[in-house]
Amino acid sequence: MADITLDRIIAVQAAYVRCIDSNALEDWPAFFTDNCLYKVTTAENQRSGFEAGIIYADSKAMLTDRVLALRQANIYEKQSYRHILGLPTVLSNGGGEARTETPFLVVRIMHDGQSDVFATGVYLDTLRLSGDRLQFTSRVVVCDSSRIDTLMAIPL
Amino acid sequence: MADITLDRIIAVQAAYVRCIDSNALEDWPAFFTDNCLYKVTTAENQRSGFEAGIIYADSKAMLTDRVLALRQANIYEKQSYRHILGLPTVLSNGGGEARTETPFLVVRIMHDGQSDVFATGVYLDTLRLSGDRLQFTSRVVVCDSSRIDTLMAIPL
Amino acid sequence: MADITLDRIIAVQAAYVRCIDSNALEDWPAFFTDNCLYKVTTAENQRSGFEAGIIYADSKAMLTDRVLALRQANIYEKQSYRHILGLPTVLSNGGGEARTETPFLVVRIMHDGQSDVFATGVYLDTLRLSGDRLQFTSRVVVCDSSRIDTLMAIPL
Repeated sequence: MADITLDRIIAVQAAYVRCIDSNALEDWPAFFTDNCLYKVTTAENQRSGFEAGIIYADSKAMLTDRVLALRQANIYEKQSYRHILGLPTVLSNGGGEARTETPFLVVRIMHDGQSDVFATGVYLDTLRLSGDRLQFTSRVVVCDSSRIDTLMAIPL
Repeated sequence: MADITLDRIIAVQAAYVRCIDSNALEDWPAFFTDNCLYKVTTAENQRSGFEAGIIYADSKAMLTDRVLALRQANIYEKQSYRHILGLPTVLSNGGGEARTETPFLVVRIMHDGQSDVFATGVYLDTLRLSGDRLQFTSRVVVCDSSRIDTLMAIPL
Repeated sequence: MADITLDRIIAVQAAYVRCIDSNALEDWPAFFTDNCLYKVTTAENQRSGFEAGIIYADSKAMLTDRVLALRQANIYEKQSYRHILGLPTVLSNGGGEARTETPFLVVRIMHDGQSDVFATGVYLDTLRLSGDRLQFTSRVVVCDSSRIDTLMAIPL
């Protein structure tokens, strides 16, 4: 099976953050395979080898539940976010699967217009090609800062 | 007519912000077709369906006028800007025309060296290939924040 | 000799900042050819034609020395950094050598979790292909801000 092209990797990375930033959260779980790992953690936790992250989901169904909860809490509406992705690194590629790392920066825009750097970090991803679709089998979001209590409100 | 390659889309997006950040504003209108749409607006305006944006131009000639006005006002010199583009999404591609979305972040660097996030948002673009040139027939700049009075000074 | 592909240019740019942000500084000099130019300067210095930059090295050996000094000073450990690269512009390409410009943004994350924009600017690079390796023969880091005293701590 041929390598996954960089163009396709860029496309899925860009589509993912576009989905979140345009508040189309209901489309977010479809970026993952049915059995998947989605974890948000911190660099400090990662270094310490702590398993527990801030958010942990191991199925698309759990991600769908999360979106429902976010909609009920209605937190997302109060501010907006802008993800800016850096250039991705492809660590391995073959057999219809690629492991990549993509740095991210999230700016939060408050209702009064104030913008600040909300989070930075790196996406550690495993992407799998099934038929015509490229999906995440694993996305570990490693945040640089340990100060992320409010992170709970927004998918990263 | 073949699709416009992602490499070319990346190239024109990168060249556009390089032109602005290196203060080569006189070259800026050449990124657009003679008849074009250049509009700067806010996400809130966009959602409300307001036609009016902060900046509106429907020809390359208007963009050239704008550069002349900026040079006379001499505002641009007082600070500098750095555009950082995220990864682009290609929404459609065919017949020598592509529609793309590219997130952006602009940092403003004041004379005393202080840097802050000036604007974030997304470029909604239509790019057209004519001969060897890839130009914007439409660029709608949607700013995330509604607090953009000072935006008037700088092309986005 | 064929052009260096954009995919390879993206790959080396991404790998470079990944090396720094993951604190694998000992691998940093290997991104350069034995005889190389690595210079950190400011836009103001660049405009004024000042030769002297903030950091100047003209060999891989000097970069290795720099890493040793950083490790002894132990400054790097006190905070972390995240480089976000914008889209690169390829200015020339041929004969196994490419000149490129890549905008960058560096966020500094303090121990208490506070994140701020630390530096922005542009990498002016010359990349050379030797065998299977793509390396920097020259990297001039032009910082937008002149307020960069603390820059000494971190490779850019």
